[in-house]
Amino acid sequence: MICKAKPHTQTESGFYKRALPAQQISFSSDSGRTLFQEALLAGGMRNFFPLIEQFHTQAEPSYCGISSLVMVLNALQVDPKRLWKGVWRWYSEEIADCCQQLQAIEKDGISLHGLAGMARCNGLAAECVHADASGAGLQQFRQLVQQVCHGARPDGSPCGADELPGRALLAAYSRAALGQTGDGHFSPIGGYHAGRDLVLLLDVARFKYPPHWVALSDLWQAMQYADSQSGMARGYMLLAVEPSDSGDPC
Amino acid sequence: MICKAKPHTQTESGFYKRALPAQQISFSSDSGRTLFQEALLAGGMRNFFPLIEQFHTQAEPSYCGISSLVMVLNALQVDPKRLWKGVWRWYSEEIADCCQQLQAIEKDGISLHGLAGMARCNGLAAECVHADASGAGLQQFRQLVQQVCHGARPDGSPCGADELPGRALLAAYSRAALGQTGDGHFSPIGGYHAGRDLVLLLDVARFKYPPHWVALSDLWQAMQYADSQSGMARGYMLLAVEPSDSGDPC
Repeated sequence: MICKAKPHTQTESGFYKRALPAQQISFSSDSGRTLFQEALLAGGMRNFFPLIEQFHTQAEPSYCGISSLVMVLNALQVDPKRLWKGVWRWYSEEIADCCQQLQAIEKDGISLHGLAGMARCNGLAAECVHADASGAGLQQFRQLVQQVCHGARPDGSPCGADELPGRALLAAYSRAALGQTGDGHFSPIGGYHAGRDLVLLLDVARFKYPPHWVALSDLWQAMQYADSQSGMARGYMLLAVEPSDSGDPC
Repeated sequence: MICKAKPHTQTESGFYKRALPAQQISFSSDSGRTLFQEALLAGGMRNFFPLIEQFHTQAEPSYCGISSLVMVLNALQVDPKRLWKGVWRWYSEEIADCCQQLQAIEKDGISLHGLAGMARCNGLAAECVHADASGAGLQQFRQLVQQVCHGARPDGSPCGADELPGRALLAAYSRAALGQTGDGHFSPIGGYHAGRDLVLLLDVARFKYPPHWVALSDLWQAMQYADSQSGMARGYMLLAVEPSDSGDPC
């Protein structure tokens, strides 16, 4: 059958994407591509490759946390050990769920520590850090972003050429503090441009914003806003393949 | 609630991915990253940026065609004019469907011309070319891959720096002919390495194969295998934003 229907001409209400605030740079724009190339040549996109392979649209408007986690689980090549569809073992939001939390997440979202618990349920090591106003905290975050995006091992030594970097970073932040519409949000960090101190956010709300470069210090500030569930500052999560699970992860 | 369940220890039967045949090069491997960087610096990854932003896992094992089309519709920034979820207009397989074909596709897949009809239903111009054994056909395909991956306009002139390239290529081919498991498959073409004559296939069966570089001439040969529905050779489809829909597409 070849369908010969005509394209829809009437537009339903709602939104087709949002414009990024001027201080953030869209991944595919001319400036975004230039930043990407500079960061690539400087080594700051080592972790971009496995992550972008698994870039993903959050399945529900409140799924930003679990959808970002699904990206990381697939990028770190964690075998869920359970069937997804047909004969395939693979991570989707339903497979990553544990303790049947999906309904609650759909209603209220998930906190940083809630998401860390879910990552551990799926066999990852997860470490949460709350952002604060200290320069030391910012400096520690910058150093970790640099290490993880360059694909360094936890001891700081460089990853082997054909080694899968075994770590990833998720940022938990306030969209409003970045001048974006919406509130609390999670995004995987997909790259670092050291020269300009910019990070690439692989925003899973792809129906709303494209992936974008944001100043690391702006992100750090947006991570200091309190989570409405816990009242604690947001922050970031370092996720890593557990050595026992993966043989010899980077 | 913080879940404290333990990771699954027993592995269900089925498969966690497949190994790529030796003649194809995984996107994230050391060689894959080198090829990517060379192709980027040579200008052959202009179209990679909008496409990779929308990289996507096919929702069902037989959805490779419609899932590849969804990627292209979102990459070319086509507004579906219909609500997807919440307040958002966005393409998923359900939104791209027309004439209620999803059930039939789930059972039998879709042919090249069937998919072209679905693209037109969603407002794209779609042109199908069947592969043949002629050198002229191969040369024409190579030229088009080069043009589209470099983000050239239909007249061959270069795209403006901040212009969205308004075209994309889908390959319809036999997996078996590439030494992969499975049969007929669709993939968007995500980049071209002119020096080595390789194309990057953004394979939407992400649970099976990672994105990979394949020799353009191997792909051309794999496109000559007959489609089991129509008995005709497979081939490729050039998709383009219709000028009336987009203002001034590249």
